[in-house]
Amino acid sequence: MTIVYLAMACAALAVLYGIFTSMQVLRAPAGDTRMQDIAAAIQEGAKAYLGRQYRTIAIVGVIVAIILFPTLGALSTVGFVIGAVLSGVAGYVGMEISVRANVRTAEAARGSLQGGLTMAFRSGAITGMLVAGLGLFAIAGIFWYLVAIAGHGPGDREVVEALTALAFGASLISIFARLGGGIFTKAADVGADLVGKVEAGIPEDDPRNPAVIADNVGDNVGDCAGMAADLFETYVVTIGLTMVSIALLVQAPPAELLRLMALPLVVGGVCIITSILGTYMVRLGKGQSIMGALYKGFWTTALLAVPAIYFAASWALGDLNAVIGGAGFLDPGGDTLTVEGAMGAQAPVAGTAFTGMDLFWCMMIGLGVTAALVWITEYYTGTAYRPVKSIARASVTGHGTNVIQGLAISLESTALPTLVIVVAVVASYQLAGIIGVAFAATALLALAGMVVALDAYGPVTDNAGGIAEMAQLPDEVRHRTDALDAVGNTTKAVTKGYAIGSAALAALVLFGAYTTDLRLFFPDLTVDFSLSNPYVIVGLLLGALLPYLFGAFGMTAVGRAAGSVVEDVRAQFAADPGIMAGTSRPQYGRTVDIVTRAAIREMIIPSLLPVLSPVAVYYIVMWVAGQAQGFAALGAMLLGVIVSGLFVAISMTSGGGAWDNAKKYIEDGNHGGKGSEAHKAAVTGDTVGDPYKDTAGPAVNPMIKITNIVALLLLAALAGGGAA
Amino acid sequence: MTIVYLAMACAALAVLYGIFTSMQVLRAPAGDTRMQDIAAAIQEGAKAYLGRQYRTIAIVGVIVAIILFPTLGALSTVGFVIGAVLSGVAGYVGMEISVRANVRTAEAARGSLQGGLTMAFRSGAITGMLVAGLGLFAIAGIFWYLVAIAGHGPGDREVVEALTALAFGASLISIFARLGGGIFTKAADVGADLVGKVEAGIPEDDPRNPAVIADNVGDNVGDCAGMAADLFETYVVTIGLTMVSIALLVQAPPAELLRLMALPLVVGGVCIITSILGTYMVRLGKGQSIMGALYKGFWTTALLAVPAIYFAASWALGDLNAVIGGAGFLDPGGDTLTVEGAMGAQAPVAGTAFTGMDLFWCMMIGLGVTAALVWITEYYTGTAYRPVKSIARASVTGHGTNVIQGLAISLESTALPTLVIVVAVVASYQLAGIIGVAFAATALLALAGMVVALDAYGPVTDNAGGIAEMAQLPDEVRHRTDALDAVGNTTKAVTKGYAIGSAALAALVLFGAYTTDLRLFFPDLTVDFSLSNPYVIVGLLLGALLPYLFGAFGMTAVGRAAGSVVEDVRAQFAADPGIMAGTSRPQYGRTVDIVTRAAIREMIIPSLLPVLSPVAVYYIVMWVAGQAQGFAALGAMLLGVIVSGLFVAISMTSGGGAWDNAKKYIEDGNHGGKGSEAHKAAVTGDTVGDPYKDTAGPAVNPMIKITNIVALLLLAALAGGGAA
Repeated sequence: MTIVYLAMACAALAVLYGIFTSMQVLRAPAGDTRMQDIAAAIQEGAKAYLGRQYRTIAIVGVIVAIILFPTLGALSTVGFVIGAVLSGVAGYVGMEISVRANVRTAEAARGSLQGGLTMAFRSGAITGMLVAGLGLFAIAGIFWYLVAIAGHGPGDREVVEALTALAFGASLISIFARLGGGIFTKAADVGADLVGKVEAGIPEDDPRNPAVIADNVGDNVGDCAGMAADLFETYVVTIGLTMVSIALLVQAPPAELLRLMALPLVVGGVCIITSILGTYMVRLGKGQSIMGALYKGFWTTALLAVPAIYFAASWALGDLNAVIGGAGFLDPGGDTLTVEGAMGAQAPVAGTAFTGMDLFWCMMIGLGVTAALVWITEYYTGTAYRPVKSIARASVTGHGTNVIQGLAISLESTALPTLVIVVAVVASYQLAGIIGVAFAATALLALAGMVVALDAYGPVTDNAGGIAEMAQLPDEVRHRTDALDAVGNTTKAVTKGYAIGSAALAALVLFGAYTTDLRLFFPDLTVDFSLSNPYVIVGLLLGALLPYLFGAFGMTAVGRAAGSVVEDVRAQFAADPGIMAGTSRPQYGRTVDIVTRAAIREMIIPSLLPVLSPVAVYYIVMWVAGQAQGFAALGAMLLGVIVSGLFVAISMTSGGGAWDNAKKYIEDGNHGGKGSEAHKAAVTGDTVGDPYKDTAGPAVNPMIKITNIVALLLLAALAGGGAA
Repeated sequence: MTIVYLAMACAALAVLYGIFTSMQVLRAPAGDTRMQDIAAAIQEGAKAYLGRQYRTIAIVGVIVAIILFPTLGALSTVGFVIGAVLSGVAGYVGMEISVRANVRTAEAARGSLQGGLTMAFRSGAITGMLVAGLGLFAIAGIFWYLVAIAGHGPGDREVVEALTALAFGASLISIFARLGGGIFTKAADVGADLVGKVEAGIPEDDPRNPAVIADNVGDNVGDCAGMAADLFETYVVTIGLTMVSIALLVQAPPAELLRLMALPLVVGGVCIITSILGTYMVRLGKGQSIMGALYKGFWTTALLAVPAIYFAASWALGDLNAVIGGAGFLDPGGDTLTVEGAMGAQAPVAGTAFTGMDLFWCMMIGLGVTAALVWITEYYTGTAYRPVKSIARASVTGHGTNVIQGLAISLESTALPTLVIVVAVVASYQLAGIIGVAFAATALLALAGMVVALDAYGPVTDNAGGIAEMAQLPDEVRHRTDALDAVGNTTKAVTKGYAIGSAALAALVLFGAYTTDLRLFFPDLTVDFSLSNPYVIVGLLLGALLPYLFGAFGMTAVGRAAGSVVEDVRAQFAADPGIMAGTSRPQYGRTVDIVTRAAIREMIIPSLLPVLSPVAVYYIVMWVAGQAQGFAALGAMLLGVIVSGLFVAISMTSGGGAWDNAKKYIEDGNHGGKGSEAHKAAVTGDTVGDPYKDTAGPAVNPMIKITNIVALLLLAALAGGGAA
């Protein structure tokens, strides 16, 4: 239990870091009255939206809780509520910091680039540490309560169900938050651009544009709050499900099992410390490279994680070279696991057992995947490399060629991440089976604090630029905030690639949990997961359809909501010519309100798609071909959704980032610069990339998770309720 | 054998129909000298391109044949050569007719809409009947030779290998033809539009544009020759592999096996007759609806196919209610087939046997899928329905929203076809196992003659419009050809959805052949195809990557080749101002030559991707984890490529068609009509949709097939050569 206490202490440290740094940020000067007025409008809009979003989600949450209680018991319901509430808290607090740091970043950028960078990054780091800290605290706290207080064994069914329900709560909130926030931010952004830049010919963030406050609100509720909820979910699902799969698959005495299950917690804990250390390394060097400064922080965190994980593993497991239990290896040739977990323990231990050192290497693979994904994303979305340059060059021949080249890059950008993930799966599986894959995913996610910090920095700088423009600060301030913002496109793309990459690793682990649960709950049922079973193909195809359908909903929603923004702005311009003349103030709140209602309305049906689809597929196939085939199709669906979702998500997020930076590359004076025909084409590409990268693409990650978790819960419910 | 003779007679009838109708077409007046001059330039360009393309493919073909001969034997080599040559012939003859019918259609459209329609449709019907006729003749001929002359049993290994090699030859040519032709047509089209419509401000098909002949050449070599080679491949693979799977999976005495294997042939035969009857029903009604006229032909063919298939099945099988052999059903719970084919026959017959009536119903499911796919494609690409209208409406707010809505429709358009395919797989599998799925695919493809006729009609009308414009025929002629052409967008999209839909059904059959071959060649090897095997996940992910990478190559190739067209045209305009003034003639041939070289160069690497990837995946995984896992990963790759390819292909082809028709819908006077801002945005969408629907999307179908067939051949080669 000492190990668990250490993890909880690290989680507490992250929260303390958040409080301490928040005080630092809030103490900084918030600029002149004009800037504060603008910031207040953004704050007000963001709070109003998030409040309404959470009230809507709460209704869904309460309904789900009411269904969970009789079917899966009190423990699962409590786990669900904790996951849901904390996911909401992570998003809300992130937004609260972000809407205060934006104006302070603009003010700090008056002084120096370093000042703006420090302010924006600190604000991001608060969100990052809260995501990791709250996530780790929830998992460790529940585990501690059940094992140390309630007296359950570490591998008991209660632990498995509580952790699964925690993950479900986090996932359910995050899909609504990601999608709702994503629709809000891009509807406002696209709408503001269309009616402002294109129709009225006024620059971005011009205070005469009635949609300008909505656009800035969007950065906070989508790119900050939505992203934070999403990464909270990813963190909880990955680390929690690693523990669940240990409980299900590893055959070991309780004391040894406890130490193994505590290992992901302590790895998460020590990486919080290396992340905090990393945040202090974010400083501009001689070259004034902002990306370089951020990378200094990231690399410090990642490199320090190597010895930290080594010591954590040694301490948790004792002798790293001792063989640990018997892991759930797959019998080559069979199609079901030959080892039951501590619960089942019917079959003898099969396959190669592993050592602590094997797990250490698996975690190194996880760190390696993180580094590789960061590098690949930088390559595909950075202005210094072929992909972005090729889109910029294609813009010279028009809108069409810009979009064609952008789509080509979108498609291409899936290749390297897929190869990295494939190599990681093979290598970690060879070392320690499914448990090895789970530990690779855990190490990947352990760096979440730093990765989220880099991402949450983006919307703050974006807002700071908007405030600088609206408050008519001197040009050099806007140049500084623009420079800070350009880097944000890449860091935002990094997080999304990272989240979906972890989903691909986690998919195998989740499927392992599914098959093990199936054996446990339905020991007499033989389910054929072979590819020669047509119901498996049916499941794969239906699973593969989900990201497409979901993407279609997301894109359509943005288009429709952006249309309402355009109409409202046109109406405001027509009703009051003083707006364009600069003599009267537009009704910012009215536009915010329209986007709010549209986003809330549009998020509901697509978010329910991954919740209801697994249930529908199971029941329909069961009705046609019996229960065993129902479970086969459902299991295949879980893998179909990742097999297609990985590609849909990466192509959308990398492609969108590349389009955005191709526009910035042209604005930097290439191919004719701002105002040229090439620039107009690049603005089109950027508009297309917006819902790709910030609405449909990132929401695929929670969608995949929720499909998987609903399947696990369905199994438990069909087996006649939970353990509690 | 009488049944096989009947099939061969029907195939011969199709070829006779082709010759007879060709004579009709060629007898029609070919217009004035100016029109004939233009047509001659198009003919010359098309022949020059196709000649060079076939010479290049021939080199690859000879290399492959040289590899095949020592590894798989003479029989496979001969089968490969026949498939390759006939696929080439189908494309070449289609092009030869098309480049002659275009000018005759323009001339006939001077007289009446019906005249133009008849001429264009007859030309399409020639290509359609040749594709089906040559395909059926090749399969039936090889089968007849091996069984009736060489004295092999119908289920012997020789038959299996010769039919597989025939399919390989057809697939290899078709991927080059589809991709090379697709790059040519869209590079010329996009290049001509960019520099003509957008830069120089001259209308489409203006004779002053040096790229205008290349654009018209492209219709013939891409949309006609490439499409014909592709559908020839689809026909041969589907019907041939249905016979192969009967040979491998059905346990029956030789006489009964012969009758069952002849059934797909005779079904193909009678459907050629119903297709020919259908072609005579294509006539305008009172409403002058062109789509209505084409549908009359299609529905006649499809409805007559119902009794025709019933009588064919009764005649081939005798008593439709008698139980046929023992089919290769899957043992629920196991992961390998429990029935070996006539060759292996080690295990007892398992699963439910089926009757002729069951097969009849499976074929009705296949016809139902065709009808459903036609209707769904019409819905997604027709100007009368929500999807196209929504893209047109989104064009009002600009280029960006047009593309966003187009992408949303692309993503959404995958849903209904997937559900149709899933229902068809489940229903036909419930009726007669994998053999049932194979027969559903056979009936689907049996209508290929009519479907190809509808498709090949498109490029002829497109060319006719171009010739009318360039030869400055009266406006009403151009209006008539435009009306004929608009329908072509939908019929072209139909064929692509149809081809990829059949690929999805065939995938299960091909995978069945793969697992059966594996058992046959490596009886001591236990291969785990379960989803819990991580190498299966690895194979699925790598397979899913192929369509993305392939799509990226295709899109980039079009962008790059279109860029060279733009540069050439700019250079021609700059060198000779007389071109724009209309006093001197542009060097059309120079542009054709540039596009030719670019297309040939760009087609090679992507076409080799599906040929080499299966081999690479097998050897790499074998090296890491042993032969059994190598085969598991390879098998999973075959399904991964369809699970992702189905969505990539449908989204691209339907989305592209919708974009194109949204432009046409605006040109019909909606949202401001030609020249409005909405129209400009719609032109951008059309440009983006061009390589989507005509280059990358359709080439996914042969890519999927070739991956599968290479895997089958690899198995045979690893087992130490073929039977011959």
